[in-house]
Amino acid sequence: MGYEPEVVAALSGVSTATITTLLLRRGLRNIWIRGASPLRPGSGRVVGPAFTLRFVPAREDLATPESWGSARSTRAAIEAMPEGCVAVVDAAGIRDAGIFGDILCARMGKRGVAALVTDGAARDVSGVLATDLPVWCGGVAAPPSVAGLTFVGWQEPIACGGVAVMPDDLMVLDDDGAVVIPAALVAEIVEKGPEQERFEAWVLSEVDGGTPLPGLYPPNDETRARYEAGRRG
Amino acid sequence: MGYEPEVVAALSGVSTATITTLLLRRGLRNIWIRGASPLRPGSGRVVGPAFTLRFVPAREDLATPESWGSARSTRAAIEAMPEGCVAVVDAAGIRDAGIFGDILCARMGKRGVAALVTDGAARDVSGVLATDLPVWCGGVAAPPSVAGLTFVGWQEPIACGGVAVMPDDLMVLDDDGAVVIPAALVAEIVEKGPEQERFEAWVLSEVDGGTPLPGLYPPNDETRARYEAGRRG
Amino acid sequence: MGYEPEVVAALSGVSTATITTLLLRRGLRNIWIRGASPLRPGSGRVVGPAFTLRFVPAREDLATPESWGSARSTRAAIEAMPEGCVAVVDAAGIRDAGIFGDILCARMGKRGVAALVTDGAARDVSGVLATDLPVWCGGVAAPPSVAGLTFVGWQEPIACGGVAVMPDDLMVLDDDGAVVIPAALVAEIVEKGPEQERFEAWVLSEVDGGTPLPGLYPPNDETRARYEAGRRG
Amino acid sequence: MGYEPEVVAALSGVSTATITTLLLRRGLRNIWIRGASPLRPGSGRVVGPAFTLRFVPAREDLATPESWGSARSTRAAIEAMPEGCVAVVDAAGIRDAGIFGDILCARMGKRGVAALVTDGAARDVSGVLATDLPVWCGGVAAPPSVAGLTFVGWQEPIACGGVAVMPDDLMVLDDDGAVVIPAALVAEIVEKGPEQERFEAWVLSEVDGGTPLPGLYPPNDETRARYEAGRRG
Amino acid sequence: MGYEPEVVAALSGVSTATITTLLLRRGLRNIWIRGASPLRPGSGRVVGPAFTLRFVPAREDLATPESWGSARSTRAAIEAMPEGCVAVVDAAGIRDAGIFGDILCARMGKRGVAALVTDGAARDVSGVLATDLPVWCGGVAAPPSVAGLTFVGWQEPIACGGVAVMPDDLMVLDDDGAVVIPAALVAEIVEKGPEQERFEAWVLSEVDGGTPLPGLYPPNDETRARYEAGRRG
Amino acid sequence: MGYEPEVVAALSGVSTATITTLLLRRGLRNIWIRGASPLRPGSGRVVGPAFTLRFVPAREDLATPESWGSARSTRAAIEAMPEGCVAVVDAAGIRDAGIFGDILCARMGKRGVAALVTDGAARDVSGVLATDLPVWCGGVAAPPSVAGLTFVGWQEPIACGGVAVMPDDLMVLDDDGAVVIPAALVAEIVEKGPEQERFEAWVLSEVDGGTPLPGLYPPNDETRARYEAGRRG
Repeated sequence: MGYEPEVVAALSGVSTATITTLLLRRGLRNIWIRGASPLRPGSGRVVGPAFTLRFVPAREDLATPESWGSARSTRAAIEAMPEGCVAVVDAAGIRDAGIFGDILCARMGKRGVAALVTDGAARDVSGVLATDLPVWCGGVAAPPSVAGLTFVGWQEPIACGGVAVMPDDLMVLDDDGAVVIPAALVAEIVEKGPEQERFEAWVLSEVDGGTPLPGLYPPNDETRARYEAGRRG
Repeated sequence: MGYEPEVVAALSGVSTATITTLLLRRGLRNIWIRGASPLRPGSGRVVGPAFTLRFVPAREDLATPESWGSARSTRAAIEAMPEGCVAVVDAAGIRDAGIFGDILCARMGKRGVAALVTDGAARDVSGVLATDLPVWCGGVAAPPSVAGLTFVGWQEPIACGGVAVMPDDLMVLDDDGAVVIPAALVAEIVEKGPEQERFEAWVLSEVDGGTPLPGLYPPNDETRARYEAGRRG
Repeated sequence: MGYEPEVVAALSGVSTATITTLLLRRGLRNIWIRGASPLRPGSGRVVGPAFTLRFVPAREDLATPESWGSARSTRAAIEAMPEGCVAVVDAAGIRDAGIFGDILCARMGKRGVAALVTDGAARDVSGVLATDLPVWCGGVAAPPSVAGLTFVGWQEPIACGGVAVMPDDLMVLDDDGAVVIPAALVAEIVEKGPEQERFEAWVLSEVDGGTPLPGLYPPNDETRARYEAGRRG
Repeated sequence: MGYEPEVVAALSGVSTATITTLLLRRGLRNIWIRGASPLRPGSGRVVGPAFTLRFVPAREDLATPESWGSARSTRAAIEAMPEGCVAVVDAAGIRDAGIFGDILCARMGKRGVAALVTDGAARDVSGVLATDLPVWCGGVAAPPSVAGLTFVGWQEPIACGGVAVMPDDLMVLDDDGAVVIPAALVAEIVEKGPEQERFEAWVLSEVDGGTPLPGLYPPNDETRARYEAGRRG
Repeated sequence: MGYEPEVVAALSGVSTATITTLLLRRGLRNIWIRGASPLRPGSGRVVGPAFTLRFVPAREDLATPESWGSARSTRAAIEAMPEGCVAVVDAAGIRDAGIFGDILCARMGKRGVAALVTDGAARDVSGVLATDLPVWCGGVAAPPSVAGLTFVGWQEPIACGGVAVMPDDLMVLDDDGAVVIPAALVAEIVEKGPEQERFEAWVLSEVDGGTPLPGLYPPNDETRARYEAGRRG
Repeated sequence: MGYEPEVVAALSGVSTATITTLLLRRGLRNIWIRGASPLRPGSGRVVGPAFTLRFVPAREDLATPESWGSARSTRAAIEAMPEGCVAVVDAAGIRDAGIFGDILCARMGKRGVAALVTDGAARDVSGVLATDLPVWCGGVAAPPSVAGLTFVGWQEPIACGGVAVMPDDLMVLDDDGAVVIPAALVAEIVEKGPEQERFEAWVLSEVDGGTPLPGLYPPNDETRARYEAGRRG
């Protein structure tokens, strides 16, 4: 696990909108996690490798406060998280119990976890907002995880928001939500993403100057030439 | 297409709550677009004729980045939008792809489009918020439209948020969402809306003064007389 | 109806997250109202006995503006609300009509109602935000209640957000939403809640100091002893 | 409560499709119960006054096997049902617990209940099918009612499948599902329904003979005259 | 419009399961119409070109019994359907009103329409089952179309069950539901489908004979050789 | 893995309705799998230990026809299934792709698998019905698994229909659907189930004889004594 700091730095300047467009051109349409919004919009982009956690629904004999002390607990999972990772949590689509509250989020922040992403809910939201941990989630719910969920393991393949996430895929999170870059495609996105951002910024400046869309975006040959000339200029 | 400036001005002072009440009295219960909230709440009311756009779900042979350059593209639709219109977009209830991002919204703003309404999602939300275009939508998603949607045309009858919208119906948007006034009923709403707003403001002042609700709202004859006396006063 | 002021005061310091954990230990997993968020997050906790209202779906012969003047109307229900109560409204899961707008909310505020909770929608949201009444709801919709709902009574058992609420159960509302404490369990929560809050604050300070989670939360004997020593210290 | 035998007999020959068309002409669009299908399709039409029952979601302190013995139990409700009534059960949209099984359905059959309708689920379906009671429901589930539901009363206004049902409204059930005729409109449907059925049968025979639809259905003056002539002939 | 009889004949022997597998190999994952089941399972496969119809949700001023007599009505659409076509109806996902009943279905059967497919509901189901028209639909509902739907046109691009359908795409329907073959890919499916069916029948006979799955399905070289030898044998 | 034949035999006479009632008395409310109905109702009860399979949603780089030949494929999982087991498949709630068709079901039947249960869909339904394998599923869909799903492993904890299933829990399936008996509670259900069935059969005979419900079911002391006397008689 782990990506070079240059990879993280390069992708910090590429929006999830741009990443999804580039992955679509490679045939990947299902890499945006449905229902995971930033708890604190406008706080920027986070990039890091996925550290996965998996819940299944609660069964009263399994999902108990006592289970929090077991060897296969969320606590043990958190202590296994490496610095800089993005914790991605499969909450089985359940949003009427919160997967983590202020104490667990504070510990993740302390361990240098870059962010938490889940299709489930956070709890004790005012406490969580007071920690250092950025959170993308599907809402807020007061009840503890065991009211609706049974924790079963970490660093397994998971489903999150209708998307398959494999351990060590690269996650990018911003105000549009969370996307997964399969490990094998990271280099390509690092190569093409920043250039795409530059091109779109130029297109936007053209639109601000009054250029109509047809021929501009997507660009025809004349537009493409004008853009290239401007870059060299 | 087009409504007199006085129509737009008059309705700018009538809330969507009041409009839906008046249309209900005419037997219309289904004229509020479900799931279209302002991206920037608290920024006021927008009034304008509907310019409709229609998507169907994506099929991989139809929904491609190449389709953006075709004659029946969203780009062509935008260039056909008249100043002051409200673009109303049928996104087939799909919210895991964004219909438009910053570049297309910037162009709409440039063309004088009054607002964008959709039951689907916007993308590149921070970029969209930086444009001049007010947006009412069903959320935010990173993927491009072609990840989930195929564009098929404009100025056709559409479904949006469970409501039928016909080209040139009058749209009114505020913090309660978006409502459709059928063209044939606009004059009636223009006539009755402002008076209803005046009456409700008076009722609210009565409530602030401690008057109980029964007999006040809806008004009995005594209340009605008192209100009329006050107006003349 | 009515709880001692000490009860209300004690629970004002106990989060809904803590309350749901304590009730789970008593076997109650379904006491958090799904889909009721604060219209104005960050404005604190509200505690009060439930005053229930019940709607069923609209039927065009029953749900009319004329019904607002009937003896079994929302207006009559509001005039029956005692000071300090929390109005809990069963909106039959319908969110495309608003149960109340600014005038009714203003009257509730005037009567000293502590808060309004519903799994349905509010309407005229800017007006409602201008009143004194704190509101937890499932969204915002322009249409009047009679566009989607028929009012049928008050102080009956209701369903709200998938939870059974009985008249005079105790409601606690904060940024994590709304929870119901069955009347028979209030004394127990009043007894255990504040201590649980103290313990969790101490755990959080330990986490801030770098203590790992296993053995800390839930506490093992050593941790428990250290905490007790600190309290006595 | 109770309708004349002639009313029941007349409506036994009028389909729910025809009834909903006639009620739509009176402005009633929401009188068909969503999600209630016959357990045994093809077994004919049932007509009878509504006897309502109401559940709210389960709360573990309220929904217990012990509650089955209480005074406000489903058992007591069944013993209050008059012969010929249609039991209409508000299951709060919950379909993962069965409201009744073979024993309760057998008792209803014994008491002469005409049918059971619910938006919830039945349980012990093979046993229920072995009783005399016709059932329209939203599916089948093994768990007992108290696994998901709390029973709260009978002969109250209820919501069932998104429709308001008042005690003593008249229910008509067939393979298209269940519809509610408000008590005040029964006479009108009894008057117009049979004639509408006669007309539609004639139209169908015309279609079988090769007549195209325009001008036939809805009928123009010529068609109407031809039909009237045929009736008199 | 229209496909050669040989095309229809060839595809009558290819299951929708096989067609979706072949189209997946061409990158098409979204060509199966969600929620359209045969009203009468076990009655075989239907193949024919799509004739599309489009509804949007009902608005009380547009969706009226009077609209049935207008020029842009479902009646006019039916009279425009060619023999052998499959009527594919976009019901805007609405299933609490029936798009067609016995009279319209009887007329379609009379005109030689091969089948009706919709993501909406049929009505008067016992009458529809008595006609010659095979129907794939999303359920059954008593209310007439105008209780929930407004008809807007035919032979336009539509959404049906989350799938884009273009006029004259080729539809194949069987007990697994309904699939769309884009017109440009029909020849390829006609070429590959029957061979794939032969191969799968051989695999099934191997399984019946006790061969384990690995190496058999998908076949390794040895299996492939054995199959080819058997074909030639 | 494996239960004594006497266990399987005893539970073959206990309905899932009775099992869920007994487990509820032990505090277990969430052990019935939502949305898994018998493909062929009325074909009796199946009992066997759970053999779990797990899918996550499709990602185009992972879910390919080629993956069917990999070491971690559904084929390998099927070859690992012991005789008499019930295959329980977590399909991530996805119902627009079929997890297995006729070939894989035939192989499971050949290996002596007792039944297949899933919250997802089957495909090639006519072929599956022609095999020996009883199937409980959430519907039927033509597309292959890889159109919507990625297979990730077997004999792991899974979610199925909102329920946690652990490998080797005991599954019981009948016309009311599928229930999970946690391994630790099997002996208790084997002990109490048959007696509960005897008691309910006696109650049903009492109802048939005209006994009212109160005091009968649940039984009061007099009823209980009468039942016991009858048993001894």
